[in-house]
Amino acid sequence: MEKEIIGWIYEAAEKIKSGLGDALKVDQKNGRTDLVTNVDKEVQDFIVGKINAYDPDALILGEENGQDQTPIDKGRVFVIDPIDGTLNFVMQQENFCIMIAVYEDGVGQLGFIYDVMQDELFWGGPKVGKVFLNKEELAAPANQSLSEGLIGMNAALYRKNLYHAQEIGQTSMGIRVLGCAGLDFIAIIKGTQIGYVSMLSPWDYAAGKIMMEQLGMTVIGKNQQPLSFQGREFFIGATQAAMADIQAFDKENL
Amino acid sequence: MEKEIIGWIYEAAEKIKSGLGDALKVDQKNGRTDLVTNVDKEVQDFIVGKINAYDPDALILGEENGQDQTPIDKGRVFVIDPIDGTLNFVMQQENFCIMIAVYEDGVGQLGFIYDVMQDELFWGGPKVGKVFLNKEELAAPANQSLSEGLIGMNAALYRKNLYHAQEIGQTSMGIRVLGCAGLDFIAIIKGTQIGYVSMLSPWDYAAGKIMMEQLGMTVIGKNQQPLSFQGREFFIGATQAAMADIQAFDKENL
Repeated sequence: MEKEIIGWIYEAAEKIKSGLGDALKVDQKNGRTDLVTNVDKEVQDFIVGKINAYDPDALILGEENGQDQTPIDKGRVFVIDPIDGTLNFVMQQENFCIMIAVYEDGVGQLGFIYDVMQDELFWGGPKVGKVFLNKEELAAPANQSLSEGLIGMNAALYRKNLYHAQEIGQTSMGIRVLGCAGLDFIAIIKGTQIGYVSMLSPWDYAAGKIMMEQLGMTVIGKNQQPLSFQGREFFIGATQAAMADIQAFDKENL
Repeated sequence: MEKEIIGWIYEAAEKIKSGLGDALKVDQKNGRTDLVTNVDKEVQDFIVGKINAYDPDALILGEENGQDQTPIDKGRVFVIDPIDGTLNFVMQQENFCIMIAVYEDGVGQLGFIYDVMQDELFWGGPKVGKVFLNKEELAAPANQSLSEGLIGMNAALYRKNLYHAQEIGQTSMGIRVLGCAGLDFIAIIKGTQIGYVSMLSPWDYAAGKIMMEQLGMTVIGKNQQPLSFQGREFFIGATQAAMADIQAFDKENL
């Protein structure tokens, strides 16, 4: 299955790159800075077509085209973010990812995050027992504490200091705001960030969660509960040591 | 002169890259997250040696090795940041730059920003009348307003909401925190950010200022005064339209 999915991702990336420079049709979703383009929709349709041909019984949970309410916990579910970091895609023509994840009865099996313009594909999970960058197996990052590393941060959480975001940032070596969940997950998987604190939807975290857990790291949602896979929610992903430091800020009410 | 400087930069980058993976000697300067390594110092010494051999009369204003107090306004001054983004260099082994600028009697003539791991050299200024990415001339970015683009931001300014940093961020399409002034200048020069709001030292902004101005963009310091080239100071760099929007937040007391 992984071979087919990697093929779809590379083919989707070629479609995206061949259209760079063309006029985009940009629409707003939930506000001025929450954008969707014709390319997001076309790439999701392309990937959905591939999935339907490969496994007609699989379900799809995806950001675009009204496929955002599919439950995660029954059967095989493909979770798709055709362009993660749409604002970067529109404004920068770089710093965006294609993300796909495969869950079986609610259990993550394979995650894929492709940084299109850097041509770096991170993929793996329980089905293959490893995580790879392109064809090279990645070692688990060191289990660094919060004070030893950089942490990815959602700008609004930080500005409003929700969920102790500013204390978390101040305890770390520094925050980074990249505007693309996939790039934060890539940094964690590579070991260049020790965590990520944000508000995310299932398609934002589905692939990254699988690879982080495969590498011995932890993700949680609000009130230290598992992620719900239902709507946008508070998200922390970190090394185990950094997660313990973050949770210590407020055991009762994170 | 530019040919020689480009040669020094590539040679310095090879030194840096050949040492990646070696144990770093890391010291703190002004606090836990303000780091300097043996590599910063060695690279500054290497570049200073090249400058002294090329032009023994030139002065040097540089981040390391006690060369940080040289005045900008008399004779030829080389402004050097051997590794801009030292924290990224230590934590990530990527997302750092080598920066060199040449000023003549206080007037910027040539700026160079090299993203070492991406192998992208941005350089130019009045002496050559253009700005280049490697060998390709860059067009001036569109004169976008604040509400039309992404803006680079210093995390502490944003957290404390100094100088209207949060209002500026909220009016923009979004903030980015990259942890490396050189990367913010590169984004502005490429047209993928419309500006940058930060606290910077002369070696952080010397090269970027020259290239931004060459491309028709504007930089200012505190109270809408020119940058002082003396110590760390408030900095705004932006397209002309975005600068007007930023200045409108508080004409009296930016």
